[in-house]
Amino acid sequence: MNEFELIARLTKSLPTNPNVVIGAGDDCAVLDFGLPDKWLLFKTDAIVGGVHFTKDTPPEKIGRKALARALSDIAAMAGTPTAALVTIALPQKFDVKFVEAIYDGVRALAQKLGVAIVGGETTTNPERILISIALLGFVPRGKAVLRSGAKTGDVIFVTGELGGSPAGKHLEFEPRLAEARWLAENFSIHAMIDLSDGLAGDLRHILKASRVGAELLKDAIPVSRAAKERARSRAGQSADNPPIDIGGYKPAIAAALTEGEDFELLFTVAGADAVKLLDAWKKQFPKLRLSCIGKITADEGITIRDKTGAQPLTAHGYVHFT
Amino acid sequence: MNEFELIARLTKSLPTNPNVVIGAGDDCAVLDFGLPDKWLLFKTDAIVGGVHFTKDTPPEKIGRKALARALSDIAAMAGTPTAALVTIALPQKFDVKFVEAIYDGVRALAQKLGVAIVGGETTTNPERILISIALLGFVPRGKAVLRSGAKTGDVIFVTGELGGSPAGKHLEFEPRLAEARWLAENFSIHAMIDLSDGLAGDLRHILKASRVGAELLKDAIPVSRAAKERARSRAGQSADNPPIDIGGYKPAIAAALTEGEDFELLFTVAGADAVKLLDAWKKQFPKLRLSCIGKITADEGITIRDKTGAQPLTAHGYVHFT
Repeated sequence: MNEFELIARLTKSLPTNPNVVIGAGDDCAVLDFGLPDKWLLFKTDAIVGGVHFTKDTPPEKIGRKALARALSDIAAMAGTPTAALVTIALPQKFDVKFVEAIYDGVRALAQKLGVAIVGGETTTNPERILISIALLGFVPRGKAVLRSGAKTGDVIFVTGELGGSPAGKHLEFEPRLAEARWLAENFSIHAMIDLSDGLAGDLRHILKASRVGAELLKDAIPVSRAAKERARSRAGQSADNPPIDIGGYKPAIAAALTEGEDFELLFTVAGADAVKLLDAWKKQFPKLRLSCIGKITADEGITIRDKTGAQPLTAHGYVHFT
Repeated sequence: MNEFELIARLTKSLPTNPNVVIGAGDDCAVLDFGLPDKWLLFKTDAIVGGVHFTKDTPPEKIGRKALARALSDIAAMAGTPTAALVTIALPQKFDVKFVEAIYDGVRALAQKLGVAIVGGETTTNPERILISIALLGFVPRGKAVLRSGAKTGDVIFVTGELGGSPAGKHLEFEPRLAEARWLAENFSIHAMIDLSDGLAGDLRHILKASRVGAELLKDAIPVSRAAKERARSRAGQSADNPPIDIGGYKPAIAAALTEGEDFELLFTVAGADAVKLLDAWKKQFPKLRLSCIGKITADEGITIRDKTGAQPLTAHGYVHFT
């Protein structure tokens, strides 16, 4: 049983109450506490030593990443983060300076974005460090962008460039908070998600929630320089460490589709809005690439089209417990 | 450096914002989102395999305990819980039925108390299970009971009976939500905390936050039957496993002061309210013992008094990373 099958089992028939607008299954939970103009967003995200960072990762970057991942989920709903709790589970023998530096990383990013750190917890995890962030945010009432709103004929956009995140970006990415808010304020965004598991995986979450399919244009997918460089270096490696090759795609595009931790925004808008959006984006965010990578289809599943025609995309994103 | 010294270092000069009423350092964070009649409470709590439960703990009880601990912190502020996120970190090879049963334990307690489970996360922790609960609650605006309000001359009360929790209560305790709300609605409760680390430890948190001291009456401390039984069985054990003996106190009272995980309420009220409160309590909660165990003093530290006189209490509660 993989991660998503387990989650589907665990989240069946969960208890609810009148405060819940959206429970399990989207980027954040959405809660209505009776504020006339706002809904609350609620999210947790954990990173674990040896899984999401290594022994060589500078501690400030570990802390930064822990908070940034949760912020990216607030962004995926077009929200604004406000307050976080930090849980750190540590081996009995820990280096105080190392733990302080993790906290410094959390603190610096929080400060920059106006997020209050309102406490948390330390506990014991004998073999490795685990950091979990619980985060609250806001979104204008009725304006949370969900995974479930994609419609046949929508155009699919993605910010930035994909793939190669393990080479460094996973520790330094900017959660797309301002961009997501601008999108939601200026356009009717039908569905949005942040790319944590890779385009091939996260697009499927939108498609499943929206009960639609997608056709991607292979040459339109923005492959990062890091993905290309990693692909080149891999191609020269021995047979013990073969290049990634998924469904016939070359390594760099495979990385862009599946490596995960891009933390870019993937969203859909009506076809009629696409050109206007792209033009306005270029003026608003001239330094951040926005790519139109395909369209939403009535047929379920993902197909990918290149010069030779269209074929089903079999690749998935990163999955815990495969 | 122990757990509390580490927390003190980490929580120095944390970023804040206008939503924050109380940040790090109390049972929950308290947030003001502009609701006319309410403040929000925000809390996380984690339990770890081999630390807070064993290989033999039934999985439903693991899940129940994880949620109940966080609920107890909402109770300590006289709040009402509303929505929770559940993070489970698991080894790669896990038993699906075991994990489902953990979730069942969370679900059953949440359902009973009207708490919505609005999502969460699964992630990898290769060596052991870790469960973290993020919990939101409410308290009437301006009515959160803090640790910092104890005043010289206050009477100190504790609910239930203390010690012996490792024998079973730590898996079955009832968070004192209704009791705490009743107390705050009917009396001016100056300070309150839930007993997670043991009376000797948690009372110190109130004293430190309130800049006062306390005198306890040894014979008034309600020692549980489980603590007495464990003490008796320990007394017969070999020198390899000697009885606990802290500061000259006999094992059962030492357990009541230091074992932790009692999850009872410890609170202070003005001396003038004490008798009235005790009488009203007996009518309201006839099945739950309430004990007056001492008073708040101007002199810092804790003294404990018995027939032979008063002496300083050196014992502390349970501490991670001692």
